[in-house]
Amino acid sequence: MALCTYPQLLDDSKFPEDAKNRARRILQSCGGNSIGIDCVRHDVANYIQRRDGGIPSDPDNIYLTTGASDGIVTILKLLTAGEGRTRTGIMISIPQYPLYSASVAELGAVQVNYYLNEEKCWSLDISELQRSLQAAREHCNPRVLCIINPGNPTGQVQSRQCIEDVIRFAAKENLFLMADEVYQDNVYAEGCAFHSFKKVLFEMGPEYSSKVELASFHSTSKCYMGECGFRGGYMEVINMDPEVKAQLTKLVSVRLCPPAPGQALMDLVVNSPQPGEPSYQTFMKERTAVLSALAEKAKLTEEILNTVPGISCNPVQGAMYSFPRITLPERAINEAKAKDQAPDMFYCMKLLEETGICLVPGSGFGQREGTYHFRCVCPQKF
Amino acid sequence: MALCTYPQLLDDSKFPEDAKNRARRILQSCGGNSIGIDCVRHDVANYIQRRDGGIPSDPDNIYLTTGASDGIVTILKLLTAGEGRTRTGIMISIPQYPLYSASVAELGAVQVNYYLNEEKCWSLDISELQRSLQAAREHCNPRVLCIINPGNPTGQVQSRQCIEDVIRFAAKENLFLMADEVYQDNVYAEGCAFHSFKKVLFEMGPEYSSKVELASFHSTSKCYMGECGFRGGYMEVINMDPEVKAQLTKLVSVRLCPPAPGQALMDLVVNSPQPGEPSYQTFMKERTAVLSALAEKAKLTEEILNTVPGISCNPVQGAMYSFPRITLPERAINEAKAKDQAPDMFYCMKLLEETGICLVPGSGFGQREGTYHFRCVCPQKF
Repeated sequence: MALCTYPQLLDDSKFPEDAKNRARRILQSCGGNSIGIDCVRHDVANYIQRRDGGIPSDPDNIYLTTGASDGIVTILKLLTAGEGRTRTGIMISIPQYPLYSASVAELGAVQVNYYLNEEKCWSLDISELQRSLQAAREHCNPRVLCIINPGNPTGQVQSRQCIEDVIRFAAKENLFLMADEVYQDNVYAEGCAFHSFKKVLFEMGPEYSSKVELASFHSTSKCYMGECGFRGGYMEVINMDPEVKAQLTKLVSVRLCPPAPGQALMDLVVNSPQPGEPSYQTFMKERTAVLSALAEKAKLTEEILNTVPGISCNPVQGAMYSFPRITLPERAINEAKAKDQAPDMFYCMKLLEETGICLVPGSGFGQREGTYHFRCVCPQKF
Repeated sequence: MALCTYPQLLDDSKFPEDAKNRARRILQSCGGNSIGIDCVRHDVANYIQRRDGGIPSDPDNIYLTTGASDGIVTILKLLTAGEGRTRTGIMISIPQYPLYSASVAELGAVQVNYYLNEEKCWSLDISELQRSLQAAREHCNPRVLCIINPGNPTGQVQSRQCIEDVIRFAAKENLFLMADEVYQDNVYAEGCAFHSFKKVLFEMGPEYSSKVELASFHSTSKCYMGECGFRGGYMEVINMDPEVKAQLTKLVSVRLCPPAPGQALMDLVVNSPQPGEPSYQTFMKERTAVLSALAEKAKLTEEILNTVPGISCNPVQGAMYSFPRITLPERAINEAKAKDQAPDMFYCMKLLEETGICLVPGSGFGQREGTYHFRCVCPQKF
């Protein structure tokens, strides 16, 4: 770490004392642990425990990662097995963040789509999960259910009821739950709140909390932090068979360790400046400014997009995205098809050429046949 | 990057001007490129070109990585295909750095062993490559030849002649060459020098330089740097089929980007302070001190180990390791077997218990049947 090379930074009066103490503590705890620096893993566990109203978190269940993507790919890899009809099926939402479809393809696992309900603000219906699972069982072995909450690219925030239903479903169907919760601090809509899968799982009692396998993921790249380049993240792994968990530790150890600066930054996220500490005011000021700006942009995005004829946009309840639906005229669809282009790709290219505005076509994220969308990002920083 | 969050660092008089200019330049070039920051990739190409006596290096062939391990696993993944007898075989040296055997197992590729010649200072014999390849062709499709030079755990440095022979062999047998050259600055023995596979390949003329597929790897973790925690590295990919290369770019893009601080550090390695710049003296002083200390310890290691009865140690020509052979008495071997332990593991455990000295048993790296070793690290920093 830079602090090893520049020990004089620790004596620099430009840095507040609490920041330097943090650096000293992390440096002292650096001990060559492949799953993460010990004190950071303890701080992550404490953070989760605080966040979840006191439900215990065990540092031995915490793995630091090279961003959330790395953790997600690692768990998918660990859980993929079998051949032909016994090959692992991975249930992913449509629309989804393309990391999932790409990793599933890379691992040769089977992608099992379940569709979010656009008419109900991109919510998740259990009946759709059931349909999707049943259909998949005809040709593979569905073992994993991936949830992104708050949603990317859809910006929805799941209700507590929905999460309970999903957990009940996973328990009944013996599915491993993967909860991508990297936008846990990005919730804007009134009446919406972030509920972690871990907390809901444990509040449902030992029938569930002692049984349902869950991995949840967090990152330094999103929320108010936006420090994507550091590639910092963690995962908490619950109820994993100890022999499988030993293999997980072995799997991550081959790659030696996640980046130490990213680990230090993750520590700052889970162990942020407290009232009375010199950095507290600055930290809170920046955090509040970023989150308020995002909330405002989320609202603006919905309002303005819905004024445009042919575009309809669900409320952006959380995360940093909207996934508006576009109605394309028959002629545009035909012209796209003649060019062998997806119609929404055709729309986005036209928009880019004619206005300079760059949008990402919905077909990259997946959408119901015959519907067209684009993803629009609420920028975090300018 | 920390410099975004603390822009005042760029005005801090404690940092030399050249260091701040470097930071500014990298910040300006940060443009969301999954294969690495543009200016860093250009600096890497310039470094390789200087190192290799002017042989051109194309920035489009440079991929920045999360340490060398990440690059090596990515290339192995890209090249692994087929089933049963057509499954890709990966030729690796024995002894080897266990990243290779672990990744080959993880990918379900076929590990094809070739043995280094301990009697000739762990050198590589082409006849042994030929034997190994022929045997492997009976049961798989050997497509990749991995070389570690300078060697880990064996500390040998390959002669120019040897590298030429290996390249000729790879060309004849249509093998993809992977050159793990992370110890390229760690060469100590008189009469030894580092020759990059890239340079030798191009000096052999277009018959080879236009044909042999090569990926070579470097890292910020070794040599005089020793900044393992940053996970910085690069790979240069030569003569790869453009369609395969497009897939490589896609594969690394799924993971978004390598850690930005590691990229900045890699830049410092390939674009180090020059005479006349304020940091030059400090840089050279530290670099020389680290490399001299390593050279001295390499020599000491060989000398002292060879005074111990039952231990014989080849010269440590480069890297940071020795792999001494131990002669174990019959009774120790039997006792180990009774405990279901590898005999060298038994030896290392006894040594640890009785003296507190911790060594890594040779069985983790691979060795000829009936021989026993341990790996000993020349520490880079204390």
